[in-house]
Amino acid sequence: MLKKKDKYVVAVVGATGAVGMEMVSILEERNFPVSELKAFASANSEGKRLDYKGKQVTVHTLTKDSFKGVDIALFSAGASRSLEFAPAAAAAGCIVIDNSSAWRMDKECPLVVPEVNPQDLKDIPKGIIANPNCSTIQMLVALKPLHDAAKIKRIVVTTFQSVSGTGKKAIDELMAQTVSLLNFQEPVAKVYPHQIAFNCLPHIDVFLDNGYTKEEMKMVHETHKMLDPNIKVTATTVRVPVFRCHSESVNIETEKKLTANEARAILAAAPGVVVFDEPSKNVYPLALDVAGKDDTYVGRIREDESIENGLNIWVVADNLRKGAALNAVQIAETLIK
Amino acid sequence: MLKKKDKYVVAVVGATGAVGMEMVSILEERNFPVSELKAFASANSEGKRLDYKGKQVTVHTLTKDSFKGVDIALFSAGASRSLEFAPAAAAAGCIVIDNSSAWRMDKECPLVVPEVNPQDLKDIPKGIIANPNCSTIQMLVALKPLHDAAKIKRIVVTTFQSVSGTGKKAIDELMAQTVSLLNFQEPVAKVYPHQIAFNCLPHIDVFLDNGYTKEEMKMVHETHKMLDPNIKVTATTVRVPVFRCHSESVNIETEKKLTANEARAILAAAPGVVVFDEPSKNVYPLALDVAGKDDTYVGRIREDESIENGLNIWVVADNLRKGAALNAVQIAETLIK
Repeated sequence: MLKKKDKYVVAVVGATGAVGMEMVSILEERNFPVSELKAFASANSEGKRLDYKGKQVTVHTLTKDSFKGVDIALFSAGASRSLEFAPAAAAAGCIVIDNSSAWRMDKECPLVVPEVNPQDLKDIPKGIIANPNCSTIQMLVALKPLHDAAKIKRIVVTTFQSVSGTGKKAIDELMAQTVSLLNFQEPVAKVYPHQIAFNCLPHIDVFLDNGYTKEEMKMVHETHKMLDPNIKVTATTVRVPVFRCHSESVNIETEKKLTANEARAILAAAPGVVVFDEPSKNVYPLALDVAGKDDTYVGRIREDESIENGLNIWVVADNLRKGAALNAVQIAETLIK
Repeated sequence: MLKKKDKYVVAVVGATGAVGMEMVSILEERNFPVSELKAFASANSEGKRLDYKGKQVTVHTLTKDSFKGVDIALFSAGASRSLEFAPAAAAAGCIVIDNSSAWRMDKECPLVVPEVNPQDLKDIPKGIIANPNCSTIQMLVALKPLHDAAKIKRIVVTTFQSVSGTGKKAIDELMAQTVSLLNFQEPVAKVYPHQIAFNCLPHIDVFLDNGYTKEEMKMVHETHKMLDPNIKVTATTVRVPVFRCHSESVNIETEKKLTANEARAILAAAPGVVVFDEPSKNVYPLALDVAGKDDTYVGRIREDESIENGLNIWVVADNLRKGAALNAVQIAETLIK
């Protein structure tokens, strides 16, 4: 467990990536009690500098000796680096909060969204806490209060995920393809197997034997681990030509009946949720508006008349913030409370 | 009923719109037995010319007297014009095939997808046949064979609809907004209430009192009218920054169990359907690839493990062709068979 202090030595691993940079700026924004900020990345980034609270932090190459004296390490450097370096960090005595998929399904690693299952932070046997997948985080922030009120039996979810979920190179690819197309040039697809500009790809992460993608199964397994293993979940995850924020069409079946108005009231009172639901005024959550925001936005709240007790909702959150960096920092905030 | 002839006088109403132009080119492509093609539109388009089989057809202003001697009139000029002019056309003795929503739920107007319910063309009391909504057509082409094999009990559908469904002005708006954004200028939204470029709008057609959009309820009501009134349907319809083709994430619950392989075999043998489903080779239907195609493409066929008997599928079709102009011409082809 983390020893409580006034201020903490915090390391960001993968500090030059899309999520790592967001972690640094969120630590600053939220005034996390940092005594020293250390920034690590691959050898390519050695010597780069990051702004933090008006000072410059030099990025160093990640090694197994990087963690001496570090209290909290926020990792966002991919699953293979996490598998290699997180145990060394934990052995050096620091608590790792890892944004990759490497440790999420490890029974000894808590997988946490602070609004959903903060109690799972009580026991951290390996010194490693996993930050969930972006698409699961925002769905569960919205569904937890509805589950508490009416017990969710089944979820059918379809996602509209932005390219920033893949990282900076995918943001660049969407931009480059768009520019090419407007200039009547052939767009080049390197990051995705097909053109993403002006297209929708029903393919996120790799395909598994059951025909689902890994991304789709993450939504199933992580919901079971964090919210309730009895909830039945089926997912279709789709990449859309949007730069930032994931949108989700979520259909739920509940044990108890909730009217749309009841669901709206429950969500309006829930932590981390903003209800944005006035269709007559064209008010519903949009990726463009939610970019840069901390909360999970919910709208299009409707009773599903195809079953006895069902609801449809539309959930949008910033995948780099609540879906990644912010949730990791919120886990750290929960730890030091 | 239509009197059988060797060739027919065919009128296209709304001939200068996105769907109307597609109707003219599909009549030519499919070699529909046309003795004379007449083209009508609003007064703005009077005197414009269209190419048809190497000749030029002059567009005339639509009036109630336009239909003398016309056998078949394909309407795609919006609901209010259909309400006004279709009865006059029918009174003049021609069969109207109307692409608007005006007559779809009229009990005396058959609503037809030839692959789904051609039998409904036997009786046309008002002389008016309705062409269904684009998003319903492609969904039902894919679901009809599965319903025949396993009886569908419930559908949960989320759509990814292209801007061409709104018409030419929306195609122009997506293009103009994209150009503005790449030039660091403020994009202008006139056709949609919000920016569509690099965004997803969970809003198609107007909102109704139950919180659903008219587009969402069309999918419910038209499925009941054409396929089976006992199927429970719930829909979320979303506009995406794609120029052409609608994609749909469709979840079904069936009475009888179908494995993914069984569903794939049934769909592969179904009329108007192409199965495009080899995830290991990154083969799944994409809006970009299906543009200009006649068939409805189905992929990502998976068993839904959250229920006893369920499937997830991904359905893509060209909304201007199968979703509109082609289906109307196919109705005409069925009539003259």
